Amino acid sequence: MPDTSDHPETVDLGWARLDVDRARRTGDAEVVYGPGKTVVQVVSALAELHARHPDRAVLATRLDAGAREAVRAELPGAVIDNVARTAVLGPLPPPRGLVVVVAAGTSDGPVAAEAAVAARVHGAGVERIDDVGVAGLHRLLAVREQLAHADCLIVVAGMEGALPSVVAGLVGTPLVGVPTSTGYGVAAGGVTALHAMLSSCAPGVVVTNIDNGYGAGVHAARVARSAAPRCVPNSSSI
Amino acid sequence: MPDTSDHPETVDLGWARLDVDRARRTGDAEVVYGPGKTVVQVVSALAELHARHPDRAVLATRLDAGAREAVRAELPGAVIDNVARTAVLGPLPPPRGLVVVVAAGTSDGPVAAEAAVAARVHGAGVERIDDVGVAGLHRLLAVREQLAHADCLIVVAGMEGALPSVVAGLVGTPLVGVPTSTGYGVAAGGVTALHAMLSSCAPGVVVTNIDNGYGAGVHAARVARSAAPRCVPNSSSI
Amino acid sequence: MPDTSDHPETVDLGWARLDVDRARRTGDAEVVYGPGKTVVQVVSALAELHARHPDRAVLATRLDAGAREAVRAELPGAVIDNVARTAVLGPLPPPRGLVVVVAAGTSDGPVAAEAAVAARVHGAGVERIDDVGVAGLHRLLAVREQLAHADCLIVVAGMEGALPSVVAGLVGTPLVGVPTSTGYGVAAGGVTALHAMLSSCAPGVVVTNIDNGYGAGVHAARVARSAAPRCVPNSSSI
Amino acid sequence: MPDTSDHPETVDLGWARLDVDRARRTGDAEVVYGPGKTVVQVVSALAELHARHPDRAVLATRLDAGAREAVRAELPGAVIDNVARTAVLGPLPPPRGLVVVVAAGTSDGPVAAEAAVAARVHGAGVERIDDVGVAGLHRLLAVREQLAHADCLIVVAGMEGALPSVVAGLVGTPLVGVPTSTGYGVAAGGVTALHAMLSSCAPGVVVTNIDNGYGAGVHAARVARSAAPRCVPNSSSI
Amino acid sequence: MPDTSDHPETVDLGWARLDVDRARRTGDAEVVYGPGKTVVQVVSALAELHARHPDRAVLATRLDAGAREAVRAELPGAVIDNVARTAVLGPLPPPRGLVVVVAAGTSDGPVAAEAAVAARVHGAGVERIDDVGVAGLHRLLAVREQLAHADCLIVVAGMEGALPSVVAGLVGTPLVGVPTSTGYGVAAGGVTALHAMLSSCAPGVVVTNIDNGYGAGVHAARVARSAAPRCVPNSSSI
Amino acid sequence: MPDTSDHPETVDLGWARLDVDRARRTGDAEVVYGPGKTVVQVVSALAELHARHPDRAVLATRLDAGAREAVRAELPGAVIDNVARTAVLGPLPPPRGLVVVVAAGTSDGPVAAEAAVAARVHGAGVERIDDVGVAGLHRLLAVREQLAHADCLIVVAGMEGALPSVVAGLVGTPLVGVPTSTGYGVAAGGVTALHAMLSSCAPGVVVTNIDNGYGAGVHAARVARSAAPRCVPNSSSI
Amino acid sequence: MPDTSDHPETVDLGWARLDVDRARRTGDAEVVYGPGKTVVQVVSALAELHARHPDRAVLATRLDAGAREAVRAELPGAVIDNVARTAVLGPLPPPRGLVVVVAAGTSDGPVAAEAAVAARVHGAGVERIDDVGVAGLHRLLAVREQLAHADCLIVVAGMEGALPSVVAGLVGTPLVGVPTSTGYGVAAGGVTALHAMLSSCAPGVVVTNIDNGYGAGVHAARVARSAAPRCVPNSSSI
Amino acid sequence: MPDTSDHPETVDLGWARLDVDRARRTGDAEVVYGPGKTVVQVVSALAELHARHPDRAVLATRLDAGAREAVRAELPGAVIDNVARTAVLGPLPPPRGLVVVVAAGTSDGPVAAEAAVAARVHGAGVERIDDVGVAGLHRLLAVREQLAHADCLIVVAGMEGALPSVVAGLVGTPLVGVPTSTGYGVAAGGVTALHAMLSSCAPGVVVTNIDNGYGAGVHAARVARSAAPRCVPNSSSI
Repeated sequence: MPDTSDHPETVDLGWARLDVDRARRTGDAEVVYGPGKTVVQVVSALAELHARHPDRAVLATRLDAGAREAVRAELPGAVIDNVARTAVLGPLPPPRGLVVVVAAGTSDGPVAAEAAVAARVHGAGVERIDDVGVAGLHRLLAVREQLAHADCLIVVAGMEGALPSVVAGLVGTPLVGVPTSTGYGVAAGGVTALHAMLSSCAPGVVVTNIDNGYGAGVHAARVARSAAPRCVPNSSSI
Repeated sequence: MPDTSDHPETVDLGWARLDVDRARRTGDAEVVYGPGKTVVQVVSALAELHARHPDRAVLATRLDAGAREAVRAELPGAVIDNVARTAVLGPLPPPRGLVVVVAAGTSDGPVAAEAAVAARVHGAGVERIDDVGVAGLHRLLAVREQLAHADCLIVVAGMEGALPSVVAGLVGTPLVGVPTSTGYGVAAGGVTALHAMLSSCAPGVVVTNIDNGYGAGVHAARVARSAAPRCVPNSSSI
Repeated sequence: MPDTSDHPETVDLGWARLDVDRARRTGDAEVVYGPGKTVVQVVSALAELHARHPDRAVLATRLDAGAREAVRAELPGAVIDNVARTAVLGPLPPPRGLVVVVAAGTSDGPVAAEAAVAARVHGAGVERIDDVGVAGLHRLLAVREQLAHADCLIVVAGMEGALPSVVAGLVGTPLVGVPTSTGYGVAAGGVTALHAMLSSCAPGVVVTNIDNGYGAGVHAARVARSAAPRCVPNSSSI
Repeated sequence: MPDTSDHPETVDLGWARLDVDRARRTGDAEVVYGPGKTVVQVVSALAELHARHPDRAVLATRLDAGAREAVRAELPGAVIDNVARTAVLGPLPPPRGLVVVVAAGTSDGPVAAEAAVAARVHGAGVERIDDVGVAGLHRLLAVREQLAHADCLIVVAGMEGALPSVVAGLVGTPLVGVPTSTGYGVAAGGVTALHAMLSSCAPGVVVTNIDNGYGAGVHAARVARSAAPRCVPNSSSI
Repeated sequence: MPDTSDHPETVDLGWARLDVDRARRTGDAEVVYGPGKTVVQVVSALAELHARHPDRAVLATRLDAGAREAVRAELPGAVIDNVARTAVLGPLPPPRGLVVVVAAGTSDGPVAAEAAVAARVHGAGVERIDDVGVAGLHRLLAVREQLAHADCLIVVAGMEGALPSVVAGLVGTPLVGVPTSTGYGVAAGGVTALHAMLSSCAPGVVVTNIDNGYGAGVHAARVARSAAPRCVPNSSSI
Repeated sequence: MPDTSDHPETVDLGWARLDVDRARRTGDAEVVYGPGKTVVQVVSALAELHARHPDRAVLATRLDAGAREAVRAELPGAVIDNVARTAVLGPLPPPRGLVVVVAAGTSDGPVAAEAAVAARVHGAGVERIDDVGVAGLHRLLAVREQLAHADCLIVVAGMEGALPSVVAGLVGTPLVGVPTSTGYGVAAGGVTALHAMLSSCAPGVVVTNIDNGYGAGVHAARVARSAAPRCVPNSSSI
Repeated sequence: MPDTSDHPETVDLGWARLDVDRARRTGDAEVVYGPGKTVVQVVSALAELHARHPDRAVLATRLDAGAREAVRAELPGAVIDNVARTAVLGPLPPPRGLVVVVAAGTSDGPVAAEAAVAARVHGAGVERIDDVGVAGLHRLLAVREQLAHADCLIVVAGMEGALPSVVAGLVGTPLVGVPTSTGYGVAAGGVTALHAMLSSCAPGVVVTNIDNGYGAGVHAARVARSAAPRCVPNSSSI
Repeated sequence: MPDTSDHPETVDLGWARLDVDRARRTGDAEVVYGPGKTVVQVVSALAELHARHPDRAVLATRLDAGAREAVRAELPGAVIDNVARTAVLGPLPPPRGLVVVVAAGTSDGPVAAEAAVAARVHGAGVERIDDVGVAGLHRLLAVREQLAHADCLIVVAGMEGALPSVVAGLVGTPLVGVPTSTGYGVAAGGVTALHAMLSSCAPGVVVTNIDNGYGAGVHAARVARSAAPRCVPNSSSI
């Protein structure tokens, strides 16, 4: 095990050990997860990671308004997405492969946006299809061709979480379901959507934690990148 | 409150107080629920209710093999359904209105059968559509016309319980979802299907307990009967 | 499947695809669900749907105080109900059939009001009976006649959710139980009332999600409309 | 604390320390709980407790068929109840006060029987009222007088567990609800009945664990005994 | 059933049907439960019930600071308890029997106070014993005599809810456990204490909902009142 | 939507509608899921699907011993795996890409075997690595190179489900976690492993339902097939 | 990290990779956990581990009757405990320090026995105290001295799980609570006891999974061994 | 039982009975738990305990900002830790033995800090290792020597809670896992981390309630103190 024991790179910020070695091990840089960090910590972690890898995009997620404002002020080069609640610092990689992010309803938008940003930062091209919930099937059937040319699908839905089952019955593309915390009562903050997706009668549906658009984006980008020959160069439009 | 206090009819069997007054109050006779009753109790309750109301069908549900065998032996006039696990004694009422029972998969069959028998015994005409799960949408879309001419729909599904949402987006007929205990893991014996149906993004979906085809049949028959003008006379085919 | 694939009507608002085709498919227009939408989105969705269907009522539900205020200011024709937290824009349909909304306690009032508004907007006549919880049975027994002449009953209760069982034992009318999130401790935000209604020993009780008066109203209106011959013309009094 | 530390009586059976001091502390002898004990252990514990207190009844609960058979064979003086699954050895105390055990349905019978035996063994007179579920209210209203003359009520119900709420609204007698594990799906082995009883809108309902007729019997007997002046001497009829 | 159907007394406040007949049926007046009521509703319900029964105490529970302030201002005769969050209007009944309220820790104080007020208003004498949790047993053993002379014990505890088991092993008095929502993590807002009390290895423990001191007070007062001969006249000290 | 509405292929077996059109839509044939089917139904479904697609492998999963025996007897060409509980009928496709299935403990073997069979039948090459749980890290670190050359990883673990987090920190390959129902107590039949994997601190972990090796195999094969250039031709060794 | 990467010892049995290096890393040998292993696998794993470490005891746990019988037949040197369901092969280490295992009730015996065997095999002296549940405190207070001279306490209890709180209030010895799956209803297979122990109001209580006597034994032995100076040489009596 | 019954010391503050006898029974003074106490109560309890035991440190935990401010103002000798949210009053004991507190991520810091303070106040030396989560194993492997020389380990982790399993596989030191409430969705406020640690495949992991650093510190300090010969004198650095 020479490469972990010999010279694993760790940057000690005093309050954190940044895993700057991750890029070598997994191909992706560490990401700054906002909750539980002060505004100062978010900014300094982004800055430090960017300084180590100025040639690649660094991502911060789940930034509240204060953190986004601080990043905007302190790191003018950062690209802020207020819906996705993300910040990206550094040049985006060229898009390889295509991830299509499908969302059931308008309230699933922030999670879909986070998934799209994460997939793009991790190297895939990205397209989005919104508001195609199963209670109005014709909206979904109308975009079937667009679904079929993706290298990986991310399907975001709350409430009963039925959309991944329906989409997975239409196309054979690798598909990640992302349950969201929309809904009330026994929707249970997304648990019902999560368990419904896991219980899908359609084959091959895999799932992330509730509202974890980021995780779906990382997985989908890895899938899409390795399927690069089908990549659609000018499709990146997050 | 003269009609409950004056002469409520109750038949005391020693081990049970049969509510033979229910027909007057609600229009339906008491039903014999099998679990927790001995074979002798099931037979005697059916016989006693039939003796009180020889002109109408009496229903027993959730009969295990032993109970069904005993009813077959002791009450030759009874009609036994081994899939629905029901027994019916006495003449069926003329069918009024139409209930269509839709089932997602083959393992939902017993619950769909119980719903169909219950709806028929409670006075509705009944049709069934099986194995039209959401992972193969064309099967469902092919029967859309049949769905539309029902007076009430019963939609039976397990696993992720997505079928009621999809059906309720296609037609505006009153619709009852029945979750079933099929599936494993977080399908949780039907809890996920139940909670998914309750969280449906389609408007107007109402639901019964897990595997409660009987309850759905009673509700749907009441709805269909009062909608009698749309009744299809020769549709009864359970 | 010619009618969904040929010309499904969808209005693209940029942030949403309004399903203006739903009226043709199901007989009811799309409804604006407030949570997760900005005040501007609520107003524009209501206005757009109203513009498409000026001859029918459009409903918005779960509007917080700010959204209700904005609707009141921007759409003077809208009828706002502060208890039900709804807005209705456009002419109400003539009432067909009768839905009676029964509530157990005073804190169930908002949900009962939402159910009543929804049923009325979806075309049924509506009456309400409040504060007839099972701990004082005489209050319920006193209104038994009123219960019996409904085409569909909506029974709203929180805490132990016992009222639907008792009502369903008194009359044979189609009945929808609506559990509410009143109570504390193991009342569990309505889960106990929900599970109690689903476990009812009375036959034919169907149920909606916790606090989902809207869903019950849609179902009950569909049932009542198709039972129009029993309709009581001057009963609409929400 | 002289009376616990000085000479607490404990009988060491090798596999158990029988708390024969309990009678002095609490007025009741230790009870033999069957599950987890071998047939030999049940018999020897009953025999040993009887030998220590030959002048009072000793109770064993939750005995399966094998244990009941062994007790019948080895301890001919024991009174076995096959429904309650209990054995009683030694003379019953004179009844003081009256406990009335009310059961909702026929499948609640074993739990009601256990409650009745336990209350009688712990010194109260006992009456039973069976099969008065809330879906047929007239059966309950017909026995209202009998409910009112009890010193303590035990109300046994499964499924939605609504009976205690209704009974507690009719009379002001101390009342213990006992949820049973009857029902299926979200009845959840009695959890829904338990939580419904705990969430009762009627004041003063207290509750035991699911199927714990024994515990209710002990509490009710203590209440009834201390209310002896209202005792009905010839009411003991378990 | 002449007495409920003939002239059940109900006072219609427009927004509520006050059950002023309850006193005749159960011996206790209706209680005003604060949550979900406006300040005006709390005051008017208290005033109306007091006007109907000026000779007895009327109780309001779970009043927030605003409601307590309004009652204090509008109903000067009311006695407010800021810890118990209660208001009492009208003369207290003479104390019959003795309820002892035992609390495990200081944070259980509000629930113990509510129980004490409720028991006193419902006619029992009341004593309190605080801060005798099981982690310091000597505190409990020191008050054993005081426990033994109660007619009914109310034992209030949060976290692991062990106190009722220990107390019930020391004395044979009827005992009601009240779990509280103190604690964190898997204490789960009182669910663990509740389930622990229901699972008690000590015989005869009955339980209320989490934080339901009121319900325990009603039950205990009924038990203590009927055990009046043991009553200790000058013990009322809430 | 010409291709689903025009001539969707469905084979009606009387008790099931085989979706033989799925291959055209998604690239994979329907799979026979054993539970809830009789032995005769399993055999006939396999035979029918094989007759329709003699040129490709058809898979049956979750076959109990009886079903496997019947398939062995009736369909001699089928390949039975007693650990995976699968049957495969028809020629395997040439392997494209590489799926590596990693299992934490020996009791995870059956799920890992099902995943391996499913991935192979759906067209990927497959390798397995067993018994590399996190309590003995050196076993995992020793196979790091093998992990790194996969196109998709399937990581199977029960109990605390920690293995996917550790593996995902070592390599950047697309990774699917499969929780298994091994363990006891709060392992809760796999729920803890499932929720742990979903809560992974490592980026990009996606998950299937408990014990759903099949679903993971389908997803992983799709990922590996589209990554064909990295395929290792002679790696297929399930 | 030379010692894990250089020459980690792993014995490959074909179906398992025995971690024979664990003794060097953690001071304890690998243990054979019975569930999910065939009789042959249990015997061969025991034999292989014994062959590698003939100078130390090897432990197998959770052996059903068949596995115990096979071990008895194939490995005559093994010591079988039918209550603890364990087998031990090889010489016990000399006891260092003292672990006292305290059990609340007779049905907690098997878990207490497993804890005792595990602690002894892992090098501690062991004493047991049984049947000292909190409903009869004098039994516990009588053994207080014995509790105080332990180096580590293991406290085993089911149902409400109160015993660790009471013991931890009496002595300051390191204490591990082990919840057991005894009880019914909301005892929930040990979850209530587990959560109660975790919520203990007594400081310093740590806990294992339900019924995990083995884990408690390992932890307690490690604590006791390092506290050797207080060891009581002739106390080992499991 | 002379020492609890003769002269148990209890200081009555009016609102609490301080258990100042605990030091004699268990070797540790009572601790002031902040939640549910007013600022005045926190200060007076600390002051009173300090007055009784001026020679030892008294600890208060879970102090919010207001309570910390009040302690700082009123008790200038107190040492406040804003991250751990603790106050310590009085001289620290000399450190005996070594507790090492290991934390997975930066958001686990407050719980790790509380554990460290508690262990130090209860008499152990303390070291901390932060931010060594399992997704970057090299960070953990780099500190393996430091782990190995501890007398007791406290391992703090949220989300999937995998760190204790990995650490327990590396060293044989007594280890307490502390799950934290970090994470979202099915991380469920720490329940998943808790259940994962309890289900650990590594032997001997014991666990506290979610976020209960204090409890872990007490247990670990007791373990470390009794292992004093391995104590590292100058290691105390919290």
